[in-house]
Amino acid sequence: MQKTCETRSREHLEALHWRYATKKFDPSRQLTEKQLSGLLEAVRLSPSSYGLQPYKILVVTDPELRRQIQAASWNQSQVTEASHLLIFAHRTDFGPELIDSYLDEVAETRGTAREALAGYGEFMKSKLLGQSPEQKASWSARQAYIALGTLLSAASEFRIDVCPMEGFEPARVNQILGLDAQHLSAVLLAPVGFRSEADATRLNPKVRRSHESLFAYL
Amino acid sequence: MQKTCETRSREHLEALHWRYATKKFDPSRQLTEKQLSGLLEAVRLSPSSYGLQPYKILVVTDPELRRQIQAASWNQSQVTEASHLLIFAHRTDFGPELIDSYLDEVAETRGTAREALAGYGEFMKSKLLGQSPEQKASWSARQAYIALGTLLSAASEFRIDVCPMEGFEPARVNQILGLDAQHLSAVLLAPVGFRSEADATRLNPKVRRSHESLFAYL
Repeated sequence: MQKTCETRSREHLEALHWRYATKKFDPSRQLTEKQLSGLLEAVRLSPSSYGLQPYKILVVTDPELRRQIQAASWNQSQVTEASHLLIFAHRTDFGPELIDSYLDEVAETRGTAREALAGYGEFMKSKLLGQSPEQKASWSARQAYIALGTLLSAASEFRIDVCPMEGFEPARVNQILGLDAQHLSAVLLAPVGFRSEADATRLNPKVRRSHESLFAYL
Repeated sequence: MQKTCETRSREHLEALHWRYATKKFDPSRQLTEKQLSGLLEAVRLSPSSYGLQPYKILVVTDPELRRQIQAASWNQSQVTEASHLLIFAHRTDFGPELIDSYLDEVAETRGTAREALAGYGEFMKSKLLGQSPEQKASWSARQAYIALGTLLSAASEFRIDVCPMEGFEPARVNQILGLDAQHLSAVLLAPVGFRSEADATRLNPKVRRSHESLFAYL
């Protein structure tokens, strides 16, 4: 049965109301394989500039690694107590291979001759590769933030909790995970799992700016 | 009836598959008031760092303004042919009022005494206001990218089309809309509406990096 747009809209807004930045996870509750794979598939489908997805997502379960990362994250308990820890790491530097590997996927998925994509490849390269290293890193980090938005919306639909975190020491996390050598840098942490009954903040009404202060009509 | 997590997961992934960066909109189809308000409400509920939402969203319908913005966007037809044009403008500079106005909302929404929030306010100010102007602008722009992710996920659930765009001249758009004086800068355009039958790209299979190349398990 086809759901009406109105039903979809109501349900999705309910989901966004349900979510909150979970401060305390229930350490006894783990995501099932199916829940994890659904969540990661949503992240994989996230939009990004030209579809280039200039980042990697690390799925960390190793307890010792998570203890080390927790120490580099102002000892926040979510890092070790959530079911899984996702780390978004953006590309700090890239060359033509970022675009070429994407074009390989296009050719494969759409059955297009690789040569037919050369012109489009040159166009993307002209836009992206002339940037300074700082501009490249800024652009790729922003794409990771879209992916975070996609994760948070999907998790709310699936009733899975997330605590999006910018508050950690990227240089230390990069060192723990050996990311520098891969031209990657951790930009966002996202512990995922299920809220604890003991998290009093789960009862706080959601605070958002008013419609009037956030939107302007022109 | 409560939907199972599995049904939610399947339906949301279907929605993400359905969406694509719409290159050609049907200029005869407009969003209803209800569709527009649902979409904006999702954006209003978007997560952001500390919940501060350091951006504004401009909803542009004025045809002359849209023609001018189109000229500053490599003349892309989506800007004028979509039902509505949303513009995400991040705060390029901010002081304590960004945090104070948020705390006013907290006090109002949660019925908390404003003075009880002073300590939390000082904490946020110590984290945010010591940044350089460049760091502040970078931080606020990234929050707008989360809001874009929230918009794109919600629109896919509502079966509304969007063309997220970084490709425009921010300085020109800022001038057209008088954003500089408000310490705002356009960072993303999002024409929203309904795909045209004439958009051949709507038939392209979606290209995404493989699970193996995007995720690493540690």
